[in-house]
Amino acid sequence: MAVKAQVLYDFTAEPGNNELTVKEGETITVTNQNIGGGWVEAKNSRGQVGLVPEDYIEIQKVLAGGGGNVAVPDLSFFDAFAPTSASSSHQQCLSLVLVYPQKADTTLLQASNGSDPWSVWNADTTGNAANSWAAKPEGTETAKAASNWDSSGQGHLQAYQGPGTADDEDWDDEWDDMKTGGYTESEAGEGGAMNRGGAHGSSMKIALNKFPGFSKSGPELYLLGKLPPKGKDKIPVYLGEVGPVWLYPETQIDCVVADPKKGSKMYGLKSYIEYQITPSNTNRPVNHRYKHFDWLYERLLDKYGSAVPIPSLPDKQVTGRFEEEFIKMRMERLQGWMTRMCRHPIISNSEVFQLFLSYKDEKDWKMGKRKAEKDETVGVMIFSTIEPEATDLDPIEVEQKCEQFSRFTRAMDDGVKDLLTVGQEHWKRCTGPLPKEYQRIGKAFQNLSSVFTSSGYQGESTLTDALTAAGKTYEEIATMVAEQPRKDLHFLMETNNEYKGLLGCFPDTIGVHKAAIEKYKEGDKLVAAGKITTQDKTTMARRISTMSYALQAEMNHFHSNRIYDYNRVMQLYLEQQVKFYETIAEKLRQAHARFMTM
Amino acid sequence: MAVKAQVLYDFTAEPGNNELTVKEGETITVTNQNIGGGWVEAKNSRGQVGLVPEDYIEIQKVLAGGGGNVAVPDLSFFDAFAPTSASSSHQQCLSLVLVYPQKADTTLLQASNGSDPWSVWNADTTGNAANSWAAKPEGTETAKAASNWDSSGQGHLQAYQGPGTADDEDWDDEWDDMKTGGYTESEAGEGGAMNRGGAHGSSMKIALNKFPGFSKSGPELYLLGKLPPKGKDKIPVYLGEVGPVWLYPETQIDCVVADPKKGSKMYGLKSYIEYQITPSNTNRPVNHRYKHFDWLYERLLDKYGSAVPIPSLPDKQVTGRFEEEFIKMRMERLQGWMTRMCRHPIISNSEVFQLFLSYKDEKDWKMGKRKAEKDETVGVMIFSTIEPEATDLDPIEVEQKCEQFSRFTRAMDDGVKDLLTVGQEHWKRCTGPLPKEYQRIGKAFQNLSSVFTSSGYQGESTLTDALTAAGKTYEEIATMVAEQPRKDLHFLMETNNEYKGLLGCFPDTIGVHKAAIEKYKEGDKLVAAGKITTQDKTTMARRISTMSYALQAEMNHFHSNRIYDYNRVMQLYLEQQVKFYETIAEKLRQAHARFMTM
Repeated sequence: MAVKAQVLYDFTAEPGNNELTVKEGETITVTNQNIGGGWVEAKNSRGQVGLVPEDYIEIQKVLAGGGGNVAVPDLSFFDAFAPTSASSSHQQCLSLVLVYPQKADTTLLQASNGSDPWSVWNADTTGNAANSWAAKPEGTETAKAASNWDSSGQGHLQAYQGPGTADDEDWDDEWDDMKTGGYTESEAGEGGAMNRGGAHGSSMKIALNKFPGFSKSGPELYLLGKLPPKGKDKIPVYLGEVGPVWLYPETQIDCVVADPKKGSKMYGLKSYIEYQITPSNTNRPVNHRYKHFDWLYERLLDKYGSAVPIPSLPDKQVTGRFEEEFIKMRMERLQGWMTRMCRHPIISNSEVFQLFLSYKDEKDWKMGKRKAEKDETVGVMIFSTIEPEATDLDPIEVEQKCEQFSRFTRAMDDGVKDLLTVGQEHWKRCTGPLPKEYQRIGKAFQNLSSVFTSSGYQGESTLTDALTAAGKTYEEIATMVAEQPRKDLHFLMETNNEYKGLLGCFPDTIGVHKAAIEKYKEGDKLVAAGKITTQDKTTMARRISTMSYALQAEMNHFHSNRIYDYNRVMQLYLEQQVKFYETIAEKLRQAHARFMTM
Repeated sequence: MAVKAQVLYDFTAEPGNNELTVKEGETITVTNQNIGGGWVEAKNSRGQVGLVPEDYIEIQKVLAGGGGNVAVPDLSFFDAFAPTSASSSHQQCLSLVLVYPQKADTTLLQASNGSDPWSVWNADTTGNAANSWAAKPEGTETAKAASNWDSSGQGHLQAYQGPGTADDEDWDDEWDDMKTGGYTESEAGEGGAMNRGGAHGSSMKIALNKFPGFSKSGPELYLLGKLPPKGKDKIPVYLGEVGPVWLYPETQIDCVVADPKKGSKMYGLKSYIEYQITPSNTNRPVNHRYKHFDWLYERLLDKYGSAVPIPSLPDKQVTGRFEEEFIKMRMERLQGWMTRMCRHPIISNSEVFQLFLSYKDEKDWKMGKRKAEKDETVGVMIFSTIEPEATDLDPIEVEQKCEQFSRFTRAMDDGVKDLLTVGQEHWKRCTGPLPKEYQRIGKAFQNLSSVFTSSGYQGESTLTDALTAAGKTYEEIATMVAEQPRKDLHFLMETNNEYKGLLGCFPDTIGVHKAAIEKYKEGDKLVAAGKITTQDKTTMARRISTMSYALQAEMNHFHSNRIYDYNRVMQLYLEQQVKFYETIAEKLRQAHARFMTM
């Protein structure tokens, strides 16, 4: 018994997920309502069958009379999430994340996203950067927008399709695990209606409550609390040549993310990708799905986020035009993320990271997971494990250093965004109008050559052959120009994109330090009011000094990585650019040689 | 006693001519009504004084009451020139030439010309090329539009300002000489009202009546007339390796157009430019103003136009943003025109051309002018001087050859226009968005470098210095890209533009031959009707054969020049392109070397 349904919102199928693309207003036949997980199976008028989110359609009832009014579900609920004090540009960005199924916002999204898939990215990069830094809770939208950038080629220019069409292959069972983490009440209410939206949003979760431990209690928990005894978790800070540094292991772990394989579940209706991760210390490959990476990210964020900026995972909403492209792109970015984690002495040495890299069997994994999720040394409490082997710093000096790092990361964030904007425009030109123009030049030469061939005049084959060759050379140049960005700009953009994501985490990390300094500054008042003792204030100063050593060690870690990364990326970029121009020059030299000297 | 006047039409001053730019509706004060030559001296509200054409203003009368109605002069007269059967695009093009002072057409012109000075050019090149070839009388608009192209640099992109604003420094005394030439009745009526317009339009004169001798009588004059005895004017056609060829002189004349000098007249109120022409045969420089070139062009067109396509002079309406640019550009193009004329064995050997090159004194010049203007061997009669040293051709073969040349020149015209369109777009990109983008890339690198410098981290000066250098390199590349078109594309465009002009003359020249063939085909009918004798028909066949030899000789001349020109221009273009890419590669190689290898 076929059930008809009307499509309420456009939905674009994720490649390879057995989904069905449908358009608003389209009538489809629901072939299976019992799929579960928020999906139904449906067939369109062309006979194509696939999964469609049940929120996106309305089962048709035969109406007694009048026009078939489509009932738009009451989504006013989502308005509660819309920030009221944020600037309009923020509002728009947040809308993208939070309010996507709402009709008006979808329109807005389409208007701003429009034919240019880069516009969302632009809105972020060209907007007042200070804004996203000033309003801390929204700060992480930066990291989110950062990941929307996609540079694996022309085909990827449609990367950001907006939340209405994007999805992760894992979403459907993601909320099975969802309540195990540090989710707070503000999200609890989402359950039903937001299941699809809620499944997406690591960035949303961060936006609302990045540091659950911290937000509950503020920095006081560490500054004034009774600290647990230090276990084997101790994180020493040494004084190196450049100042405070983390303890670096003698050999750095590295890992290779490779060999993505498709798995399936729900009787083959839904599929997912498993990536193979081979760490250099064990050389034993383990398999993980994106959701495992996401779990790892959440644990690292909870535990180390106050001391170490943990860059977001490659965005789930980044999607390729073809499934293969999408998988390749995600793998490349997961590799980048893992490499960065491996390079970090604290992260790579952490129990949870090692658990991820040394997956033995399901039982061991589940046990490790449970343990990690129960870890109480999260949020600001991470500072209780830090042991600086240096004299205490004066709080004024702490504040100055904190300000300096804040200024630097903000300035670098601007610089990186600027470069990304420029690079994105250059990419568009190199893959769009420029090669077309070279192609047309090439065609024009060849065209003229073929006219000349028809002259009937003797002995002009040298000219016509040379003209044809010159024309073909410009066509080759067109191809080279179009392919070049993948060879050089891609890596430059990816690196800067990664840094943009990383820099987007700094306001949160630095914010923890600023809040602690503010708390210390209130010290005298609190002492006078009898809320804390003088001893407490001294303890606060000492602990702020510890925090500062951690921040300095982290900044020095950041700087040394940055210098390495930028040297490397610039070398690669320029090397490829040189090759590019040399090849063109050589091709033209050959074309030139064919014309007769007179 | 100040006389107020209202400006009826926009008028843009020609640089350096003591003219005053005025806008429609502006009120100016006439300071001298007795300048003569159609000019008045006027002062605008900002106190600037200069010459304004008296047709463009209306002396104000104090009205008794009501609004100051501006009396628009009755210009319905000009409508007589508007072709009725032409396509609308032709109509528009012709309007540009003929009807410029008429209000409606000025608006139309502005609309099509608009903010993009290339649009007129585009309208021509992108329009259906077949059109301009089909309607012969309008054919020369092609040549005209061709000259509107201006490529001496970005500044020249505003080249074509439309007839309403353009003028030649010589116009004011041009009509002194106007009635001496082969002007026909259709133009006689212009006298007063058209003085300014009439002074412009070589293209208009051609459009209306390119071959006065021919249009009066058709090809019959030569085909059936009693031919004058052959004097020293005899033009032999030989059979060379490639077929019929002109007699080429042992040493080819060449000439250098240089050293433009300003002269003035009308008590210094009007100025003009004299160019120095030094022919290689005498090595004695002579001076000529543009109007002398124009006179030469008219004579050559009248006398040889049926047998030899005479390319138009560089358009008077081509104008640079600055006087110097304008003069340089015109000189360059006059040089190109003279070189082409020198290369032509018939033209360079002609009495009128030699008169131009060997100007002795005013008396000699005037005498030579008068003689040339009285020459009766003009139009189709030129064929009476041609002596092919070969057997007569069959009229069918004549027709086939004529068709072949027609096809070839039409196809080449399309090819050349295509290349010009592409080149123009490329020029715009290379001088516009592309260098801006490289500059922004350069700035982004330098920007990042200066952020890095503020890190406070030790030992990163190698990176920051290298980043700054890389940034500067991209700024240098930006400059190179913007300057490159002047080095390579300019010459490619100029050459093709010249060919476009030349090819635009072919429909007229070939038309003469086609008309003659048609006339011959009517031969039997005419014989039957007793209008001609059988002997006349045989004479026609022989004379058509002579015309065909002339056309073949001219085509072979065209082909050999074309092969030379295109080899040369492609060599120069590619040579400069190679240098360009090599220089960029080298600059980037140096930038690359500054980054540290790790």
